[in-house]
Amino acid sequence: MELIAEVLKITAGGRRIAILCEETARSLGVHSSDRICITYCEQQVIAIANLATHFPKNRIGLYEEISETLGLKTDEIVDVHLAHLPESLRNVRAKLRGERLREHDMVTIVKDVVERHLSEVEIAAFLTALNIYGLNMGENEALSRAMVETGDTLDFGEAPILDKHSIGGIPGDKTSLLVVPIVAAAGFTIPKTSSRAVTSPAGTADRFETLCPVDLSISEIKAVVDKTNGCLVWGGALDLAPADDLFIQIEYPLGIDPLLLPSIMSKKKAIGATHVAIDIPTGNGAKIKNMTEAYALASDFVDLGLRLNLKIQCALSFGEQPIGYAVGPALEAQEALKTLMGAGPADLKEKAVGLAGMLFEMVGVEGGRKKAEHILESGRAEKKLREIIEAQGGDPHIKPDEIPVGTKKAEMTANQAGRVLWMSTENIVNIAKAAGAPRAKGAGVMVKAKLGEAVKKDTVLIEIFAERSNKLETALELAKKLQPIVLSKKPEDQMLLDRVPKKVASEKPFILER
Amino acid sequence: MELIAEVLKITAGGRRIAILCEETARSLGVHSSDRICITYCEQQVIAIANLATHFPKNRIGLYEEISETLGLKTDEIVDVHLAHLPESLRNVRAKLRGERLREHDMVTIVKDVVERHLSEVEIAAFLTALNIYGLNMGENEALSRAMVETGDTLDFGEAPILDKHSIGGIPGDKTSLLVVPIVAAAGFTIPKTSSRAVTSPAGTADRFETLCPVDLSISEIKAVVDKTNGCLVWGGALDLAPADDLFIQIEYPLGIDPLLLPSIMSKKKAIGATHVAIDIPTGNGAKIKNMTEAYALASDFVDLGLRLNLKIQCALSFGEQPIGYAVGPALEAQEALKTLMGAGPADLKEKAVGLAGMLFEMVGVEGGRKKAEHILESGRAEKKLREIIEAQGGDPHIKPDEIPVGTKKAEMTANQAGRVLWMSTENIVNIAKAAGAPRAKGAGVMVKAKLGEAVKKDTVLIEIFAERSNKLETALELAKKLQPIVLSKKPEDQMLLDRVPKKVASEKPFILER
Repeated sequence: MELIAEVLKITAGGRRIAILCEETARSLGVHSSDRICITYCEQQVIAIANLATHFPKNRIGLYEEISETLGLKTDEIVDVHLAHLPESLRNVRAKLRGERLREHDMVTIVKDVVERHLSEVEIAAFLTALNIYGLNMGENEALSRAMVETGDTLDFGEAPILDKHSIGGIPGDKTSLLVVPIVAAAGFTIPKTSSRAVTSPAGTADRFETLCPVDLSISEIKAVVDKTNGCLVWGGALDLAPADDLFIQIEYPLGIDPLLLPSIMSKKKAIGATHVAIDIPTGNGAKIKNMTEAYALASDFVDLGLRLNLKIQCALSFGEQPIGYAVGPALEAQEALKTLMGAGPADLKEKAVGLAGMLFEMVGVEGGRKKAEHILESGRAEKKLREIIEAQGGDPHIKPDEIPVGTKKAEMTANQAGRVLWMSTENIVNIAKAAGAPRAKGAGVMVKAKLGEAVKKDTVLIEIFAERSNKLETALELAKKLQPIVLSKKPEDQMLLDRVPKKVASEKPFILER
Repeated sequence: MELIAEVLKITAGGRRIAILCEETARSLGVHSSDRICITYCEQQVIAIANLATHFPKNRIGLYEEISETLGLKTDEIVDVHLAHLPESLRNVRAKLRGERLREHDMVTIVKDVVERHLSEVEIAAFLTALNIYGLNMGENEALSRAMVETGDTLDFGEAPILDKHSIGGIPGDKTSLLVVPIVAAAGFTIPKTSSRAVTSPAGTADRFETLCPVDLSISEIKAVVDKTNGCLVWGGALDLAPADDLFIQIEYPLGIDPLLLPSIMSKKKAIGATHVAIDIPTGNGAKIKNMTEAYALASDFVDLGLRLNLKIQCALSFGEQPIGYAVGPALEAQEALKTLMGAGPADLKEKAVGLAGMLFEMVGVEGGRKKAEHILESGRAEKKLREIIEAQGGDPHIKPDEIPVGTKKAEMTANQAGRVLWMSTENIVNIAKAAGAPRAKGAGVMVKAKLGEAVKKDTVLIEIFAERSNKLETALELAKKLQPIVLSKKPEDQMLLDRVPKKVASEKPFILER
């Protein structure tokens, strides 16, 4: 059926959508969400039909995505007919019925996600079904491969290419800022891409951005890695496994994360990694709550690595409190730099050295942990980080105190003497965010007492940094309400941890950032 | 944060969406799909944030839905901040985790569906989770009530108000065109709303539209029912249980139908029905494949009726072939009118009399079936239908042959002699649609032999009607390929029904129309 094109001078956010009035749609036998085939000058485009009540008859509204592909102007004539149900959508429907999908089926879906042939409604249903039914290893493998194939890949030449990844969830985890220079200083290639915070007070990209630019192109990354063996860049704007970014956009409002395994593995595969250390913080305050869960996830990572020809080792790490003391982009960058310079918190040092040592041993270096320790303590890791900072366009001579942090400060003190019995990482996250992190790079929280430490009455428990006074006040008020650090003279003196529903609980954050 | 409004001169299809550039969103702490609160002149609107790459900084794009609500013009200043996660979305997320929802939880969701506070992604995830987990009776009841409460309701005065509903799926099921006048002729009120075809060749509204207008307003419906006791109108444009229409839009591309029970029951409740006969066609060619499934569904309908104070009886009806011979809007209207005039197929008469009789007995009339038969055979039902046709604005004196049917005709004949062993209702649907139904009201199929009938070689098996020659050819070709009617001399002579994958199968239609 011939229709008159009406070029809409806006985009549909990458989606391929065409508008029809209800009467014209009925003439075509088209219902809302059906696919239509639009032909103009022997070119064809498949679009999803949206029906509008007030759209003129016998016309078809085309967003820029389609009009530009076809090179079409308003009032030109196009041929339109109902298209078949795409194969990808049949596979989505099979998954909704609980069927197992094979590699080819997954490829059709991921391809049509990337090429925008599946609607958000269809992707949402697919992800929900995956979240409820779970994925078997074959499906995880097929999805990982399909996600790599539909994006760019990087090649840093000869193996091994090392990488480190944390599944996240613990505030203050600035370990990558130490692991990357330790590994690179030993002469190994470690091209690290990181995420920005979505729901946390700081992602690795946010932290490192207080030291130098992190928004590099693929050719810039190659130049940095060629020069220094390593990099610390934001992965978000690169086209590595782009399906994942589209999946995350849908998962975010739903608070689900069914693709943890293929999402991480496809990004690692796309960057050309051969050996990856995966950190699984485990504990009440982390994504993974206990060792049983952690072992199960770790073994899935290792299995999937075997299938994808990626050597994986997982570290199950202590996840009951922040790593180090600092939470917030600039505060954490300061702390990481100080630690590289020899004056940081023991737990951060220990974690970084442990993970770097694991990577060394994965590529055959004996006594990896010792080697990592030596590189850190000799100052070679600091030197290497400064090289990377310079190569990425920052000031290599920067001192920790020159990283600007919030000038508005407040403290919360202990109401009693005692030992730190437990702390809520979730509440610390909320306080840091209330202070303005991650947007205000200088905002955040310094935790002044860690688990098991003895404190006196009126000792400072947390220090809040903000860039604006009203943010500081809100954060302090929240801290006083939430009391994220719980003290007890002796553990046996305070067996009741909380009362429900008497105490005001903060909203549980959903963590989805890679 | 203050932003400059940019009024977009288009609607977002009823959705409440605001556009921000990524940088402005970051300043607000807003991610794509987050809710934002927009304040202007002390009025507040909650919208869902969509992020755009090329949108100007410090501006907010507002579709007409929002700009009109706020009475806002481009370049005016609005205050914008991140809003809380709506309660409905928390309940959706609980359902994604498999939790049972209570009445209040369902109400929050349905309200926010109707008021467009939940996005299509969120509704799709909710419906997918319901489809996988299933609904318990409490959830069915809560959803039904919530769907009634969020729409208009009708009141036809004193009880009983009778109604009849088929869950659909069988082509040629024009039974309502007989049941309504039989029941109305007996003096009972039966305000019947029907759907148009979505994936079938004809809905009741499509059939009756060949006799008179069906697109009536609520006050017009009341006038028709006041005058005649009954009506046969299209329910789609009325605001009865509007959530259902929004749910169906999302379910359609996904091919899922988790809300069959609350969807039907809410529409019946909204129209004020007190006694409802529900037809469950059962058989290979129907939605419900066997008696076990049919009994389970029927008992759910009855249970849900008890909870909603609606008297329900279900009829499990034979669903292995079309009802009567005609398939297609005008052909079916002809057949229904002929049957009312005394000359129709036995199975259609039997089904209509059975259902009407069931309704009579539900309201205490003894020998309901006999009474229904008498009303049909005495011509009172025909007279009543003509009254309804006149009241709805049609010609009450219309003769069956005056209903225009397609002038292009073709026949498919038997390749051999034999008895009709089985027939594919699905393929008959596809042939009728290929001929142009439901859009071409005169198009369709006349089935010339029913199950068990003996036919000779070259006997006509089906006759195809179309309004255009090319449609006729396509339909005939399809009929020859699909061979929807299978003949055998004796059943034991042809034990192989089909070969896979040798024979070309037609695509399985997904039926979702109420």
